[in-house]
Amino acid sequence: MSLQSHLTASISSSSSQFLAPSNFNSSRSVSVSVPTKRLGTCRCVATPAEEKTTYKTKVSRNANIAKLQAGYLFPEVARRRNAHLAKYPDAKVISLGIGDTTEPIPEVITSAMSKRSYGLSTLEGYSGYGAEQGERPLRAAIASTFYKDLGIEEDDIFVSDGAKCDISRLQIVFGSDVTMAVQDPSYPAYVDSSVIMGQTGQYQKDVQKYANIEYMKCTPENGFFPDLSTVARTDIIFFCSPNNPTGAAATREQLTRLVRFAKDNGSIIVYDSAYAMYMSNDNPRSIFEIPGAKEVAIETASFSKYAGFTGVRLGWTVVPKQLLFSDGSPIAKDFNRIVCTCFNGASNISQAGGLACLSPEGFKAMQEVIGFYKQNTEIIMETFNSLGFKVYGGTNAPYVWVHFPGRSSWDVFAEILEKTHVVTTPGSGFGPGGEGFIRVSAFGHRENVLEACRRFKQLYK
Amino acid sequence: MSLQSHLTASISSSSSQFLAPSNFNSSRSVSVSVPTKRLGTCRCVATPAEEKTTYKTKVSRNANIAKLQAGYLFPEVARRRNAHLAKYPDAKVISLGIGDTTEPIPEVITSAMSKRSYGLSTLEGYSGYGAEQGERPLRAAIASTFYKDLGIEEDDIFVSDGAKCDISRLQIVFGSDVTMAVQDPSYPAYVDSSVIMGQTGQYQKDVQKYANIEYMKCTPENGFFPDLSTVARTDIIFFCSPNNPTGAAATREQLTRLVRFAKDNGSIIVYDSAYAMYMSNDNPRSIFEIPGAKEVAIETASFSKYAGFTGVRLGWTVVPKQLLFSDGSPIAKDFNRIVCTCFNGASNISQAGGLACLSPEGFKAMQEVIGFYKQNTEIIMETFNSLGFKVYGGTNAPYVWVHFPGRSSWDVFAEILEKTHVVTTPGSGFGPGGEGFIRVSAFGHRENVLEACRRFKQLYK
Repeated sequence: MSLQSHLTASISSSSSQFLAPSNFNSSRSVSVSVPTKRLGTCRCVATPAEEKTTYKTKVSRNANIAKLQAGYLFPEVARRRNAHLAKYPDAKVISLGIGDTTEPIPEVITSAMSKRSYGLSTLEGYSGYGAEQGERPLRAAIASTFYKDLGIEEDDIFVSDGAKCDISRLQIVFGSDVTMAVQDPSYPAYVDSSVIMGQTGQYQKDVQKYANIEYMKCTPENGFFPDLSTVARTDIIFFCSPNNPTGAAATREQLTRLVRFAKDNGSIIVYDSAYAMYMSNDNPRSIFEIPGAKEVAIETASFSKYAGFTGVRLGWTVVPKQLLFSDGSPIAKDFNRIVCTCFNGASNISQAGGLACLSPEGFKAMQEVIGFYKQNTEIIMETFNSLGFKVYGGTNAPYVWVHFPGRSSWDVFAEILEKTHVVTTPGSGFGPGGEGFIRVSAFGHRENVLEACRRFKQLYK
Repeated sequence: MSLQSHLTASISSSSSQFLAPSNFNSSRSVSVSVPTKRLGTCRCVATPAEEKTTYKTKVSRNANIAKLQAGYLFPEVARRRNAHLAKYPDAKVISLGIGDTTEPIPEVITSAMSKRSYGLSTLEGYSGYGAEQGERPLRAAIASTFYKDLGIEEDDIFVSDGAKCDISRLQIVFGSDVTMAVQDPSYPAYVDSSVIMGQTGQYQKDVQKYANIEYMKCTPENGFFPDLSTVARTDIIFFCSPNNPTGAAATREQLTRLVRFAKDNGSIIVYDSAYAMYMSNDNPRSIFEIPGAKEVAIETASFSKYAGFTGVRLGWTVVPKQLLFSDGSPIAKDFNRIVCTCFNGASNISQAGGLACLSPEGFKAMQEVIGFYKQNTEIIMETFNSLGFKVYGGTNAPYVWVHFPGRSSWDVFAEILEKTHVVTTPGSGFGPGGEGFIRVSAFGHRENVLEACRRFKQLYK
């Protein structure tokens, strides 16, 4: 993320119908609702274009998109970072906010991509349209690497340009008439894509929730696993484990309960396992380790946080052929139709990289990158532990979830930035259940993580 | 496309609710309605999985997806090709069907991608998440290469993983309450994405159209430009020029009428210019060459058919900031929100390739590839002309649209395949207006195009 793009990031107030063009270019934009009252300097911006243009089409704005809160979490974080930089131009700002990978991709992987690129200049190496579902050797390698002995076959795997993109394609499959549940707090794409597809009601400012979404509260009190006895039945249940942002990983027993809950209700679980390889203990790496899950679950995953592929773009989604709609038709059939109609396959070069990731040498290299970030995580955990904070996550995920009981997330975020020049992410950006927490990302160069921790120790000693 | 994937391609009858898993893996799957009565050997297939599985979720299938006709054009074409191969195992089958690029990518472009790949293994060359809208140098190069002096700015350009993907993202922006018009015949993704988003009624078998879509008939009689005086007002007008499949390119005068029509109706034109660089005469390459178009039009484009990027995946969409919904809010704001929430940017390696395409050397190399395919087109046109057929397209597009008046497209397709071992595409696959035509693609190695033409001459002499 360049400084240039940081500097163009900005945000409008949620009451504004118009964003200046520069706002379209905010560098990061996973969107979440940010309480307007905390936005500080936000304002409506009119451009010269707006003044000159009087012609309007007669096309009505999509009412579902209008429901979305204007605030994007990460651009707002970037905006505050930039305001901070303007205030302290000489400060060495360290970002442990956005969760973007920083370490180079192992050469065994990039050389495969490089070779594939060059090969495209030869008659033998050239390939045009590939299968929208992904190249067969990669699908087979994913199946045998991550789902061996779980009854997941090559044909159940759909290679994609990333989990975030697949989440929206799944929402297109489900359509506007389903109901959905989500962990609170959670990765904002689940809720936002649900709003976009028209599954929800309006945003309710008082509770900071959209109507018609079941928010499953995940707190230290319930071990970050929802009390299913109080959760209403929904068609779809989004569930991320190890979780972003809390870092909590569900146990085998908890996931068995979740699968049972889905089965009793006839629900579909969309299980996001993008951080599975960060698991330290023996919790399941895949929902399909739970017997019966193939009849109630979809799993989405990604190479982003394993191989540093955040920019290369490669992920996959597992839709077992055993998963059926109420009319008996397979979800995989409709997902395949959407993948074929709304997508055209991941880049063939990225797929060559993915295949290299799953070679013995590539897999080992990938594990080393993950190990590096896990060491970062330990350093951050030890730091906050030593300062007497209650610290969650970290063990099974590259995120440390630090509790500041009774305090506003945005206030703590501002305090840390002001006094240590370190960017974190306010927990309330992930849903109302994140209030009072700060997410500290372990993605960073070692010297930056160490320096950030030195500063935390000075601030909170 | 491997033989393996060809061999797994198959299709169900449109009355079937269930496709066998192998059907999910059909290699090409732009979908169109194929009249059931012509499908010949199609049948419902039950798998062992279906017999064993009794559990069904209680989630209803999305009624809009259920409206889609089960038949996919290109898998059906592939299925027939495979049946043909089985019947004539020694035949040298030539494919001028699907429109997939075949020529290697110039080295100046692949070496840039290779270099970017290797760079990802270095601290200086590594990049994680990029801007969802694309890297600034690429956006700037697209603006200055294709939209110089047209008032389109870098910020109006959204880089993507291809035009087909952007068409669906645009449909998500529009939502389910808009009405749409489409050229008949046309690229099937427009209609299918409209059905998926719930903009249409059911498929009407008698007329082979979906209810609530305005089909704008494009025939030799009207010069393949619709008679706008008979076209009903819609919110959205999809318009592809040079057209796939007819190869027709609209003139400046015609496009001026189209923009005026949209302006009078308050409609939004989605202009697909994916073949603009194939233009031989001086028709506009961009809708934005027409004064006032920025207030009524979006343009989508692609590197696929220019640089052979069908597998690399790179395109772009222009959403001018002057284009407004009826409430005065810019469409670009909502498109940006969808790009940020449902997409995460094109692969950084593909973007490096795109930037190389737009360097002076890369652009020249890209034009040479296009020139090669244009020579193929001429060979095909001359062949059918010499045989006395009425031939359309070709001059401004890599597709030749051959008229077989009074005959069924599928019958002609079958005749050509049976007697010459050449795969084409039946025109009726692109909509009812394509009946009686065959699309012959110019994407192929020269020796294959020459050999196919020799066989055409033998068949129709």
